[in-house]
Amino acid sequence: MLVLILGAAGMIGRKLVDRIAAEPKALGQSIDRLTLADAIQPPVPEALKAVSKAVTMDLANAGVAAKLIEDRPDVIFHLAAIVSGEAEADFDKGYTVNLDGTRALFEAIRQQRLKTEYTPRVIFASSIAVFGTPFPEVIGDEFLTAPLTSYGTQKAIAELLLADYSRRGIFDGIGIRLPTICVRPGAPNKAASGFFSNILREPLVGKEAILPVSDTVRHWFASPRSAVGFFLHAATLDTAKIGPRRNLTMPGLSALVSDEIDALRRVAGDKAVALIRREPDPVIERIVAGWATQFDAQRAGDLGFKAEQSFDEILQVHIEDELDGRLA
Amino acid sequence: MLVLILGAAGMIGRKLVDRIAAEPKALGQSIDRLTLADAIQPPVPEALKAVSKAVTMDLANAGVAAKLIEDRPDVIFHLAAIVSGEAEADFDKGYTVNLDGTRALFEAIRQQRLKTEYTPRVIFASSIAVFGTPFPEVIGDEFLTAPLTSYGTQKAIAELLLADYSRRGIFDGIGIRLPTICVRPGAPNKAASGFFSNILREPLVGKEAILPVSDTVRHWFASPRSAVGFFLHAATLDTAKIGPRRNLTMPGLSALVSDEIDALRRVAGDKAVALIRREPDPVIERIVAGWATQFDAQRAGDLGFKAEQSFDEILQVHIEDELDGRLA
Repeated sequence: MLVLILGAAGMIGRKLVDRIAAEPKALGQSIDRLTLADAIQPPVPEALKAVSKAVTMDLANAGVAAKLIEDRPDVIFHLAAIVSGEAEADFDKGYTVNLDGTRALFEAIRQQRLKTEYTPRVIFASSIAVFGTPFPEVIGDEFLTAPLTSYGTQKAIAELLLADYSRRGIFDGIGIRLPTICVRPGAPNKAASGFFSNILREPLVGKEAILPVSDTVRHWFASPRSAVGFFLHAATLDTAKIGPRRNLTMPGLSALVSDEIDALRRVAGDKAVALIRREPDPVIERIVAGWATQFDAQRAGDLGFKAEQSFDEILQVHIEDELDGRLA
Repeated sequence: MLVLILGAAGMIGRKLVDRIAAEPKALGQSIDRLTLADAIQPPVPEALKAVSKAVTMDLANAGVAAKLIEDRPDVIFHLAAIVSGEAEADFDKGYTVNLDGTRALFEAIRQQRLKTEYTPRVIFASSIAVFGTPFPEVIGDEFLTAPLTSYGTQKAIAELLLADYSRRGIFDGIGIRLPTICVRPGAPNKAASGFFSNILREPLVGKEAILPVSDTVRHWFASPRSAVGFFLHAATLDTAKIGPRRNLTMPGLSALVSDEIDALRRVAGDKAVALIRREPDPVIERIVAGWATQFDAQRAGDLGFKAEQSFDEILQVHIEDELDGRLA
């Protein structure tokens, strides 16, 4: 089997590659060739060196998508994107990469198919940013996509293209609307959503973290391990069961900031919780107030996608995957 | 005021131009320049000859949109499109005109705006084809856009772009999701929806018409006059009331084929109804079964958009506007 991962140097991309390295049959069949592509050089795990090729590319540049599709990968993971904040700050860059780049990929597949039969599985990383306020208390599978960011707009457009190309049989696509990923590994970043992870990850290693919103803020979460699980499940499930609505809101955990803190206390005690410093930030409070808090991801659940049910589980995943199972 | 109408040679485009010719203040202010553009030469009514320019163009060709926006029209009606059947039959043509052409227009406005302040009103002709089955019995304003045609996909993508460009203040856009227009004037055409109009228009002038579906088929209608009214209202209403969800399902009449026939009988008697020949066509029956039958167009209603309430009204509009108010 030939596999292509676009965005292989990103946080989820790297974890997806690591999982495939650890579980050679993660995609059902063994992998004959794995192409890892990203704007920066993607790392290649030792176990995959023999079958892998790392490519540095800009998907929106002319000919790049065609080149990547030339060897007709059977499974294509498309995780490459300009993130939310940058797509909002740089109009051209966001549309060029997130819309034109994605369309170039889909078109490259169509052009291959016009030569001889070819219908790859395409798994696309979408986002709950396709939704915009006002929301019902729980967002169901039939709620409109009315995004309030350019990033969300670009993801919603890519979803529509994916559904139409799939309906026409050009490829066999699935759009995966990711919850906010928590606990994100690595250094604290400036994303408005960063604090959800910071207030767990930093205290677990004895460091301070800033909480800019109130304890009663509710949001929608899944672990990085669940995100990888979504992509692998999407690559292997029977798509005949999905029907023409190819974009699926993934299951997740609807939880309060106080639920995060309670779970942290149970795992690491009051001294960890004491490292959370409350510094209300009205700008972040306002941004977060525009985000969805809860979904009824019934279709994805029925199709076998799974996420954590509590923040204790999410913390456990982080401790196992990032801290070698040990607390400091 | 400067006005640009794209798609001015189409059925609705021509009626919009005729209405502006008949009511010089239809857009609130008097018109200093009116540019009528289409793929074929648009007709210019006598009353508008002094201020009008007719342009033959392909919006998707390089530089065409920029040229049209060069004189900075205050109001832009974008009705130019490849229709549903053709967009489904010709993948490239549909995406090139309906998606790339629309994006070229929006980008041309942004490029003008980057020079000096410019924020035109943009009214975009969308369609209920942005929705796809399965439907609830009545489709509300928060139902997802999951189209099942390439045409519907292209319209849904244009809607997302329009909302994002409007949110960013690049222009002041409104997307108008038109019901099926009935009674369409002119010769019977081969569109799958043609019979809804044919069974009224043809018998009214003593000609036979074919009904390929059962009397119990329900659908969603508005007259050509209402469609023109939607566009004019969208050009003049206070957009501050709309909020960021800029695409509106227009009001319409949910009616059965038997409601059409009953109205025809009331207006033109049994001899007109006898000209409807029943020839069930399983292909058309299947296509029509995938179409929406009823909407709760609450937002558009609250914003003052209006359509007919009965098929008697729709027939009356046709008799007044197409038959000089007289039956044969």
